[in-house]
Amino acid sequence: MKIGLLQCNLVSNDIERNIKTIYAALSKAAEQGAELCVTSELALCGCPATEQLTRTAFIEFCRVKLQELAGRIEAEKLPPLLIGAPIANPVPEGKPLQNCAAFLRSGKVMVIDRKVLLAADGTHDDFYYFEPGVGLGVLQFNGWRFAVAIGEDVWNDRGFWHGRRQFYADPVEDFMTGGADALINLTGIAFSLGGCEQHKKVLSWSAAKYRTPIVAVNQVGGMDSAIYPGGSMVFNACGVLREQAALFAEDVLVVDLDKLRECDSDEQAGVKMSEEEEVWNALVLGVRDFVSKCGFSKAVLGLSGGIDSALVAAIAAEALGKENVLGILMPSPYSSQGSIDDSLELASNLGMETITVPIAKAMETFGEMFAPSFANTKPDTTEENLQSRIRGITLMAFSNKFGRMLLNTGNKSEAAVGYSTLYGDSCGALGVIADLYKQQVYALSEWINKRKGFDLIPRAIIDKAPSAELRPDQKDSDSLPDYPVLDALLRAHLGDKCDREELIERGFDIALVDRVLRLLRGAEFKRQQNPPALHVSTHAFGHGGRMPIATSFK
Amino acid sequence: MKIGLLQCNLVSNDIERNIKTIYAALSKAAEQGAELCVTSELALCGCPATEQLTRTAFIEFCRVKLQELAGRIEAEKLPPLLIGAPIANPVPEGKPLQNCAAFLRSGKVMVIDRKVLLAADGTHDDFYYFEPGVGLGVLQFNGWRFAVAIGEDVWNDRGFWHGRRQFYADPVEDFMTGGADALINLTGIAFSLGGCEQHKKVLSWSAAKYRTPIVAVNQVGGMDSAIYPGGSMVFNACGVLREQAALFAEDVLVVDLDKLRECDSDEQAGVKMSEEEEVWNALVLGVRDFVSKCGFSKAVLGLSGGIDSALVAAIAAEALGKENVLGILMPSPYSSQGSIDDSLELASNLGMETITVPIAKAMETFGEMFAPSFANTKPDTTEENLQSRIRGITLMAFSNKFGRMLLNTGNKSEAAVGYSTLYGDSCGALGVIADLYKQQVYALSEWINKRKGFDLIPRAIIDKAPSAELRPDQKDSDSLPDYPVLDALLRAHLGDKCDREELIERGFDIALVDRVLRLLRGAEFKRQQNPPALHVSTHAFGHGGRMPIATSFK
Repeated sequence: MKIGLLQCNLVSNDIERNIKTIYAALSKAAEQGAELCVTSELALCGCPATEQLTRTAFIEFCRVKLQELAGRIEAEKLPPLLIGAPIANPVPEGKPLQNCAAFLRSGKVMVIDRKVLLAADGTHDDFYYFEPGVGLGVLQFNGWRFAVAIGEDVWNDRGFWHGRRQFYADPVEDFMTGGADALINLTGIAFSLGGCEQHKKVLSWSAAKYRTPIVAVNQVGGMDSAIYPGGSMVFNACGVLREQAALFAEDVLVVDLDKLRECDSDEQAGVKMSEEEEVWNALVLGVRDFVSKCGFSKAVLGLSGGIDSALVAAIAAEALGKENVLGILMPSPYSSQGSIDDSLELASNLGMETITVPIAKAMETFGEMFAPSFANTKPDTTEENLQSRIRGITLMAFSNKFGRMLLNTGNKSEAAVGYSTLYGDSCGALGVIADLYKQQVYALSEWINKRKGFDLIPRAIIDKAPSAELRPDQKDSDSLPDYPVLDALLRAHLGDKCDREELIERGFDIALVDRVLRLLRGAEFKRQQNPPALHVSTHAFGHGGRMPIATSFK
Repeated sequence: MKIGLLQCNLVSNDIERNIKTIYAALSKAAEQGAELCVTSELALCGCPATEQLTRTAFIEFCRVKLQELAGRIEAEKLPPLLIGAPIANPVPEGKPLQNCAAFLRSGKVMVIDRKVLLAADGTHDDFYYFEPGVGLGVLQFNGWRFAVAIGEDVWNDRGFWHGRRQFYADPVEDFMTGGADALINLTGIAFSLGGCEQHKKVLSWSAAKYRTPIVAVNQVGGMDSAIYPGGSMVFNACGVLREQAALFAEDVLVVDLDKLRECDSDEQAGVKMSEEEEVWNALVLGVRDFVSKCGFSKAVLGLSGGIDSALVAAIAAEALGKENVLGILMPSPYSSQGSIDDSLELASNLGMETITVPIAKAMETFGEMFAPSFANTKPDTTEENLQSRIRGITLMAFSNKFGRMLLNTGNKSEAAVGYSTLYGDSCGALGVIADLYKQQVYALSEWINKRKGFDLIPRAIIDKAPSAELRPDQKDSDSLPDYPVLDALLRAHLGDKCDREELIERGFDIALVDRVLRLLRGAEFKRQQNPPALHVSTHAFGHGGRMPIATSFK
């Protein structure tokens, strides 16, 4: 039994485009001898599911297009297809839609499986749209009995959730008491550091436990904040990963399942990447897809001479081509000559164009405009924010005039403590490194320099003390703890969910803990107006539940 | 049996403040002879539930504080309290928390009920935090057997959900086969036009069906986008609303349940408000609470001479006091003298201060800054956006310098079609009328003028053709369909969920439908960076599911 894994780059809601993509992959798999093909979860409408799925006419459109595809597959004698799709709930109670796997064969659409354990992670909010199913589906085909599981339906085991089962139900265990020749898992799992490894462990463990090969097909490509990494997997009945599709790229993988029913080999497949390589590839894919799926080809960003904008420029040049990235230098009287020189050297290394637009004149003009009202006040952050906002306006003018998407260069450490100016450096269509702590920004910059074999990002940019340069001799460390300490504290609080007492137990200074937690909560109003951020962690801002803005609780 | 309904204004996450508020209400109810008191849903931590509930230390803090409160109630011989609170799930599987009703009596905390039908509406995302219960709870007290239901647990009946049950389960029906003397419903239902009436209908219907009095306690007050209207209700066993607490204000209502076990009277209680009065009250409360819960007392907004900023100024003056609202006039060379005069007349009517900051100089300066790069281009929306962004910068400078919260004045019709400038007129901490269609803005303005007995909002502002005044003689109608048509189309699409074909069937012009739907989808990137909007409809932007930005599907 040759099974084809169709790892496609899909677009939320664009059914016709997705069908073209899937059809092309199916044809390719057929050429390679696939007898049965499988897509990722909700491949028809693309992950993540969106509000569009609450529209009856859209669901009907999905139904018609799925039926057409079934007809086309039959007419062209392509292999039968197990496809992830939203399908109307046949029962007149509960939500009107289900997250399904449908089998397209003999010109017909048969619903095989309905997702049981619905996701609720802030990006994938199955609960808004879908009525859950009650157990895994079964696909009988060519003498094989496949268990079919969608997404999280395979994720439930005591071993993997901090000692606590995520759900009461365990659909795989329930099904496997009846046995299966293999398990097929259609997934739409977005990239997060460590997340792919965890999913792999769960699948490997299940394959070995039930002595059943597992085929797991994942989506690939950027979709707003989510970056689907692909990396579809095939395990033998001993839980060994025997084949893996490309990471961060489309792929069609055709695998002979027969030999995987036994422990054919201990040889692990799959590419090992360092953390930095994974993040680099994810962000490049995320930028490329966000820009192109928005219908843009060119980008613009501000180059400050700092590490954040330097790294974003390097990612953008890789994603879009150096000729499509424009850097704007906007020196003020507080900008050092070093910052200007470093930015120009960076742009020269990358081969990208720059324009310099000094902002002193605008600072002066606004100063005069506000003078009558500000006469009896002292300079404060108002004037610093003003500079940042003049730069924001300038970048947006170049974005609007030349149809270039503005890339935002803020990092996660800044966003956490509100060390940014709303409508200033927070401007942009996409937060490219907004889910990277400052220390990760440094590590990724060093990594890309090493990979390129020279200082693509000039050494001076990496070595200088971080500064917003909004007043003379300003350093980030005037306002913030040193980044290694700040990042460690934020990781413990946001990632490990350590609260005040636990942070203090871990050795962080009490005054520092209180200050950082206060800053963190007080910056919620800024974060809620930030551009969407490419997610590379399990605890990105804007991911999962929300925090209140208007609360006296700090 | 005298039961006290504690309708409190609560703050998400601020446990200590909420306990003080509840304690004060409990003391008041005790003075009025209450033998048993009831709060709204999740009163301890305030609705909506937030990410803070995923923190173990916070849950432990909730537990300790609840225990303390129980001790204090016992020590001070206050009436026992049925309180909504997040409480740890005793079972070591599933999510670690449940949305509970706990009974505080004899110094003890007893969990009575765990919410079964979890909310997932984008504001209340119970699914992120809570493991569902399996059925209603029962409270035996002083010879009474109360069924206890939280929030949506009472909402499930075929009659009320477009011919489709929202859930498979019907916890009230399940419970009522065993009978109850009365049903207590702890709710946290946010305001939406028509929503309160619907909730009332469901409860009235259930009371009559099961021949059981119902006591429903709702939260009151603004919490970010959500505005809880209060209006707690008491029904007799024939489904007649016999008592209702204040709308849009804190209240303590003590009711004798004994007489309600029979159909004591057909006389309906409750205040009837017009749609405009409801919206006015909701927005005033929403602004007041957002500003004060953020720790501010003063606000600033831009006065353009148009109807939107005029209405927001009137709402802000009512909410915060006229002395706390500052209007900034920012005329450009394209501003008409009428706009300036009208704004000054409005401010004079409201008794609020204004400052005028002409922006021509800044337009000129940026023009010079961009001239070398823009030399071979024609003026386009870049220059229009620039004016709007200069105003945004100016408003933020006054906000920063004087510690005044900037109120955003955009409406829903504009937000829908993207007729606004990101980082320009989209600036602000709170979208005051962002969930009002333009026609509702007019209607509310007429209503407040009528209520005040004179043209508080000058007639000239209401009568003039809407214009952004970003180029000579510009009118909104140059770029957009007339608002009555646009609003009708948007209401049909967003509210009634009519898709393209249905809109055309309803008689909208095909070209217009296609244009508006394209604009709507293309403006998603702006809406995702807009400030939080006060919600007054069931289909506010940012409420419920999300839409993708980067999609080729238009």
